[in-house]
Amino acid sequence: MTVSYDGTAYNGFQTQPSLNTVQDMLEQAVFSLTGERVKLTSSGRTDAGVHARGQVINFYTSSKIPLERWCRALNTRLPQDIVVSGAREVDLSFHATRSAVRKTYRYTIRCGRHPDLFKRHMEFYHPTALDTEAMREGLSWLVGTHDYTSFCSVRSTKLSHVRTIYDARLECEPLDPLLQSFAIHIYLTGNGFLYNMVRIVAGTLIQVGEGKRTSESMRDILAARSRAKAGPTAMPHGLMLWEVLYDENGITT
Amino acid sequence: MTVSYDGTAYNGFQTQPSLNTVQDMLEQAVFSLTGERVKLTSSGRTDAGVHARGQVINFYTSSKIPLERWCRALNTRLPQDIVVSGAREVDLSFHATRSAVRKTYRYTIRCGRHPDLFKRHMEFYHPTALDTEAMREGLSWLVGTHDYTSFCSVRSTKLSHVRTIYDARLECEPLDPLLQSFAIHIYLTGNGFLYNMVRIVAGTLIQVGEGKRTSESMRDILAARSRAKAGPTAMPHGLMLWEVLYDENGITT
Repeated sequence: MTVSYDGTAYNGFQTQPSLNTVQDMLEQAVFSLTGERVKLTSSGRTDAGVHARGQVINFYTSSKIPLERWCRALNTRLPQDIVVSGAREVDLSFHATRSAVRKTYRYTIRCGRHPDLFKRHMEFYHPTALDTEAMREGLSWLVGTHDYTSFCSVRSTKLSHVRTIYDARLECEPLDPLLQSFAIHIYLTGNGFLYNMVRIVAGTLIQVGEGKRTSESMRDILAARSRAKAGPTAMPHGLMLWEVLYDENGITT
Repeated sequence: MTVSYDGTAYNGFQTQPSLNTVQDMLEQAVFSLTGERVKLTSSGRTDAGVHARGQVINFYTSSKIPLERWCRALNTRLPQDIVVSGAREVDLSFHATRSAVRKTYRYTIRCGRHPDLFKRHMEFYHPTALDTEAMREGLSWLVGTHDYTSFCSVRSTKLSHVRTIYDARLECEPLDPLLQSFAIHIYLTGNGFLYNMVRIVAGTLIQVGEGKRTSESMRDILAARSRAKAGPTAMPHGLMLWEVLYDENGITT
């Protein structure tokens, strides 16, 4: 299933003891519909306050409910800030985490005089101008297969921090003349992401945009393999899990 | 001053006894900044749940705070769902309601399989397809100088229901492939609007889009001068006060 959610009200995606999570909501909706206590698998957890446009989940059910009824049936049992937008049957070998071949995250910065209040839960607001060309250049150093330890939380438990970034791009929306501000979207597509990776990249790029670091410093930070060399972890609310792609069966969100 | 607000949390713009309104928040922010108990004038009240991109307000102050400091100073004293985006000094004769020469409202309908949850507070969701060409035709009958009694709440206390609509247009956003839905924006620009006018126009146009009424019925409804002939009042959360224009001094939002 493809799931979108506004992460503002949740303690992240993954179930935690006595906390309000997106996974809990989804599993409760499935229980309410089928009576089954399923355990969801997702393409990956998202942190508290992080959003998803195209999260992918899978679970096993012996329900006889026809496939085309699932979306609406779950949506009527879900709060308004979680929407199931697609459902399909997959091979029993499918695993939303392990079968994913490409994931895209987006980080959004609203830059200029005034925030866009209608997007305040989805855009990190930066009141002064940023050098977007320098940020774009800095971003380009991240493409390729690298050890991204510098852009990974020290709390990571992964054995290897080598990942491949296929694409990294920065898009600017036109200036809103009323607000005298514009949105900067950073899209990162890779075969996998480390703990806080996109948020640390965004936090470091903001410093590049502020002129506190050069674009080339991104290369040096990467080479250093040290979290201490990179910038701060940017706020979670600017981050959105944009899209997850699967090879087998051509499943995409 | 130009003010944007997310109306979701408020009981409308205008101060009401013991209710939480946008005007109360603004007047409290001015008091906190200057110590003055001002009484705001706005370009017009908005109902509970209705939003504003470019509301205009004015008030009298003897504060010595420089003009360029007002926006930031007020915004730090306002909740995040209200933003003052512009401030200027005007002639003492200026009156935000009476000096306005043109106002634009926007009503947004999300049409298709799934709502856009990130815009759920700003888009009225309609799960089935709408005939947008018929809606566009229907809308065109409203342009001109007419008695809009049919599109006015029976609770109106105005002596005359004659207004001029300068422009009425419908714009469709491209289909979101993930959500299988798209947004329809209805923009109405006129010299003034009656109580619930845009929402009744939207509610009636939705029926045109559903095929329950013909586009030409808009002409007949207008001619009937009877609220009973029009469709329902559409939900407030799809409505946004878009822009207010003032002639003198070329003040625009």
